[in-house]
Amino acid sequence: MDIAMIDDRILPMAELPGVYLDRGLYFGDGVYEVVRSYDGCLFALDEHLARFARSLHEIRIFDVDIELVRQKVLAAVQRAGYPNAKIYFHITRGSGVRNHLPARDMVPNFVMTISELKDDPDAKEKGVAVSTHPDWRWKRCDIKSLNLLANVLARIEAQKKGASEAILVGDDGAITEGASSAFFAIDGKEKAIITRPLGNEILPSITRAMVMQVARNAGLSVIEKALTPAQAAECDELFIAVTTKDIVPVVRFDGIEISGGTIGSITKRLMEEFQVFARVTV
Amino acid sequence: MDIAMIDDRILPMAELPGVYLDRGLYFGDGVYEVVRSYDGCLFALDEHLARFARSLHEIRIFDVDIELVRQKVLAAVQRAGYPNAKIYFHITRGSGVRNHLPARDMVPNFVMTISELKDDPDAKEKGVAVSTHPDWRWKRCDIKSLNLLANVLARIEAQKKGASEAILVGDDGAITEGASSAFFAIDGKEKAIITRPLGNEILPSITRAMVMQVARNAGLSVIEKALTPAQAAECDELFIAVTTKDIVPVVRFDGIEISGGTIGSITKRLMEEFQVFARVTV
Repeated sequence: MDIAMIDDRILPMAELPGVYLDRGLYFGDGVYEVVRSYDGCLFALDEHLARFARSLHEIRIFDVDIELVRQKVLAAVQRAGYPNAKIYFHITRGSGVRNHLPARDMVPNFVMTISELKDDPDAKEKGVAVSTHPDWRWKRCDIKSLNLLANVLARIEAQKKGASEAILVGDDGAITEGASSAFFAIDGKEKAIITRPLGNEILPSITRAMVMQVARNAGLSVIEKALTPAQAAECDELFIAVTTKDIVPVVRFDGIEISGGTIGSITKRLMEEFQVFARVTV
Repeated sequence: MDIAMIDDRILPMAELPGVYLDRGLYFGDGVYEVVRSYDGCLFALDEHLARFARSLHEIRIFDVDIELVRQKVLAAVQRAGYPNAKIYFHITRGSGVRNHLPARDMVPNFVMTISELKDDPDAKEKGVAVSTHPDWRWKRCDIKSLNLLANVLARIEAQKKGASEAILVGDDGAITEGASSAFFAIDGKEKAIITRPLGNEILPSITRAMVMQVARNAGLSVIEKALTPAQAAECDELFIAVTTKDIVPVVRFDGIEISGGTIGSITKRLMEEFQVFARVTV
């Protein structure tokens, strides 16, 4: 008889709950998004849904109705009732007997969680430390997939060094992005923010795009180029950007004090502008 | 209220079954093994358990009692009662609210499935077609992790070309291994089998090691070197090797007929020797 074992319990395969046959679990065969609301309004939902559609297409999951996903998000956000909500959702290719090659008739699985998003005033007011780690991820980081073990391992190593984010460094010796954030440097003299150009090595981060917009609105220029860790450590200011926290100042980079260990003036201005931007752009 | 949504059903987060919070699902944060039995005897279980222990260590999952895993495998195999069984098991870091950085007190999750392993006489007697695909996997392919999306995508593309396995080609222009198999070439004149040397780019395949042993027992030499697709296509014979099927001859490589489209004599001999070897090595 085909059997399964969950922890210490043996059961007939036929009684195994379907979620245990989810290809998300066996292969990370799915893609996800994280969206947030500010004061009751979802931020950049269209952009997140467009990226989600692209990710699905890139991993060859077809026939997902993105408008239905939007409706699910809206219904669940209303039910949760948080003005500032964190919305996570993923779609996997489906459930079935484990086989690298998916069956042709799979029905994708959808999972969403919504929780209250609380501010992290400490990180925002004091800034955070980051440390570099080799970028071990796959070659399609432009896809927001469930294959995140490299990101997890980098974060575990960063924590050992007292850092709250890992900044990943590619084979070319240059920074790609954070393990779960976009990475920015500021050239104060040039009044410019600097970040790596899009490509297969980084996620087309929505927050990255929004930060670039905010920077341009604030009269800064945007330079898309890759920086080595040494170049980054010499910049006037550094920050990371992520949906759930938007802009977070970086005050230590591989143990090197940045911007005198305090939040730089341009970063501070961008943080303030972003808060306004997030509440008028819905 | 924190809520979750599974497909179309909204429920309070507190009622979400724990498996939906498995880090295996969110991050592929776990490692696995596939073991088989031949005629009632588990093959190379020690080697698989040793590799499993190494994989766990490399992703920083500690305190797993490998002897307990062995006992679980033995108990479940007996319960299933198949002489030729396919045993899949994985351990993930645990379940918890989604956060790249794992909580310190996580309890790993164990899942195993056992099914009957049926022969694939068609593949064994006629050989299979394979096609190449860029190796998109991460930089730690020596870890047998649940991050297998690159492997899945390569297999989907291979199927489109009528191939039953994808042969992955690294940035160095050379073959790494199959999407779910080791890859071998045969130089008939040198009486040698050729396969890529171990490294972070490939899995330390147990079947690969066993095939090398069988080849040496048969008086062949073993050359560990990387081959480009063009070099492989010019070899006298090609085959892939995987736990569940051991040696499978390759008769088409990117559309090019290999060994006259039939199973080469050295491959055939290795297949026969492997069957004997698998039944005396337990």
